[in-house]
Amino acid sequence: MSLENISCQKSFGGWHKRYRHRSQVLGCDMVFAVYLPPQAEQGGKLPVLYWLSGLTCTDENFMQKAGAHKLAAELGLIIVAPDTSPRGTQVPGDPDGAWDFGLGAGFYVNATQQPWAANYRMYDYVVAELPALIEAHFPASDKRSVSGHSMGGHGALVCALRNPGRYSSVSAFAPISNPMDCPWGQKAFSRYLGDDRARWREWDASVLVAQASERLPLLVDQGDRDDFLENQLKPQVLQQAAQAAGYPLQLRLQPGYDHSYYFIASFIDDHLRHHAAALGVERA
Amino acid sequence: MSLENISCQKSFGGWHKRYRHRSQVLGCDMVFAVYLPPQAEQGGKLPVLYWLSGLTCTDENFMQKAGAHKLAAELGLIIVAPDTSPRGTQVPGDPDGAWDFGLGAGFYVNATQQPWAANYRMYDYVVAELPALIEAHFPASDKRSVSGHSMGGHGALVCALRNPGRYSSVSAFAPISNPMDCPWGQKAFSRYLGDDRARWREWDASVLVAQASERLPLLVDQGDRDDFLENQLKPQVLQQAAQAAGYPLQLRLQPGYDHSYYFIASFIDDHLRHHAAALGVERA
Repeated sequence: MSLENISCQKSFGGWHKRYRHRSQVLGCDMVFAVYLPPQAEQGGKLPVLYWLSGLTCTDENFMQKAGAHKLAAELGLIIVAPDTSPRGTQVPGDPDGAWDFGLGAGFYVNATQQPWAANYRMYDYVVAELPALIEAHFPASDKRSVSGHSMGGHGALVCALRNPGRYSSVSAFAPISNPMDCPWGQKAFSRYLGDDRARWREWDASVLVAQASERLPLLVDQGDRDDFLENQLKPQVLQQAAQAAGYPLQLRLQPGYDHSYYFIASFIDDHLRHHAAALGVERA
Repeated sequence: MSLENISCQKSFGGWHKRYRHRSQVLGCDMVFAVYLPPQAEQGGKLPVLYWLSGLTCTDENFMQKAGAHKLAAELGLIIVAPDTSPRGTQVPGDPDGAWDFGLGAGFYVNATQQPWAANYRMYDYVVAELPALIEAHFPASDKRSVSGHSMGGHGALVCALRNPGRYSSVSAFAPISNPMDCPWGQKAFSRYLGDDRARWREWDASVLVAQASERLPLLVDQGDRDDFLENQLKPQVLQQAAQAAGYPLQLRLQPGYDHSYYFIASFIDDHLRHHAAALGVERA
C-alpha cells in the first residue's frame, strides 16, 4: 500500500505530516495526519495515540487547534488523526446534504445498509487498516491508545470496548455517550445500520461498557456549558453503566467549558499524560 | 462606544471572547477577539499583548491555532487580536479580488489614496482606537506590547518603532521586514500610499529602525524553510539596519520551520515570556 506525502511541517522539533492513500476498506482515497515527535528520528519505535474527530471535522482540526504537539514532543508520542468519513465523488453522503450524517460524519461504524454499506466502514478503517499502515510506514510500535471528541469520543469508546487487547488506554472529550438514545446517534444508526435496534447495541458505549471483558484506564472530560450536553451527549448514562459494571471511568465535569477546541486544548495535556502512563512512556 | 459580545468560551481557566463594534476610524463594523486570563476576574488591571495577524487572517486564526492561552493564563496577560482589514459591503477591497491586498490585507497603514483612504486606516485602529476601547471596557492597564506574523509582523514593528513610549516590547514571527523592497509590500504601498516612495519610508521597519529614538526589547523568529523568506520577508535587511543603528534585535533563524501556525505555536511561549519580562509580569 503506497502513501503519498502531501505536506510536511516542523512543529515543536518534530513533524506534522499529511498523507493521501487508497483505502481498500473504504473504497476511496483518504487523507490522514500524523504528528511525529523528535524521538521518531532516533531509531526506536514509539507508541501511537489515535485521535478520532467530531462531526464536520477532517484530519486538520485536531492538529491545528488542540495544542497537543508540545507535550507529545516531550513524551515521544506519535499522534494519528484520520478523517471522519470516506470522501470522494463516488461516495454517497447525506441525501439532504446535512452536516450530521454522511460526509464528515461516519460515526466510526461499519454501515450495513445501502447506499452506505460499500464505503462507510470507518470502524474497520480506524481499528485495523489505518494502524496497519502506520505501523508499516512509520517508527510506530504496536502500543496504541485512542481518544476523540464528540462523535469521535463515541468512536474512541466503541473501538476500545469492542477490542480487548488492542489499546492500552482510552479517553474522550464530550463523547456521544449513548448514541442509541440521542438524535445524532439515532439518525446515523438508523441509516447506516437499519431499523433493528439490536444491531445498534453493538455500537453504543453505554451498552458495551456493561459487557466489557477488559478494564482500560478511561478518562472523560465534559464541559458543563456544552450546548449538546443534555440532548446529545449524556455522559451520565455512561457513568451509570460503568459504575454498575465496575468499569474504572474517571468522568470530570469541567465548569464553564463548551464543546469547542478551546475546551479540548485546555485539558489535552491531561489526556496525553493519561495515555502516556498506560503506554509506559516516561516523560523526559 | 458600545461593544456587542458575540461569543464567550472558557479556555485555560480564562475566557476567549469576541466582540463586534462600530469603528469610527475605519467607518465600518469590526470584530476583534480578546483572551482574558483568570486573573482578569481578580479586580486589578493587567497588561495587554496586541497580536497582529497576517494576510487573509481574521481575529480567529491566532486564538485558535497559536496555543497561546495556556501561558497567558499563567502569566496573567491579556491578548487582543484584531481583524486584518476593514470589512463590510461598503468597504472596497482589491479590484481583482486578490488575497494579498484589500480585504484581509490592510497592512496596518493609513491609506492616503482613493478609494481606500476613507476606510483603510488600520494603523490608527490598532495603535489608538482599539487600545482605547480595550482599556475602557476590560481590566486592562496601559502597559502594552505588540507582536504579529508576516504582514502583522511588519505591522507590529511599525507600530512600535513609530510610537516611542507606547509599547514595552515588540516581537514578530516571519515579518515582512522591508516592505518597500518586496512584491507584497510594493503592491500594497503603491495602492494605499501612492507612487511617492518617500511616503513608503514612513511604513518600512528597516527604514524606521535606523531612525528610532527608543530601544525596545525586539525578538524576531524566522523559519529557514519559509517559502516567503527570500522574496518577501528579508529579515537580514532589518538585521543589518538594526545593527547599524545599535538597535537590540534578537533574530533567530529556526531550522526546518515554515510560515505556518505550527511554527508560531512552537515558539509563542518564548515570545510571551519576552513580553511578560518587559511588561513587568511575574510568572506565578
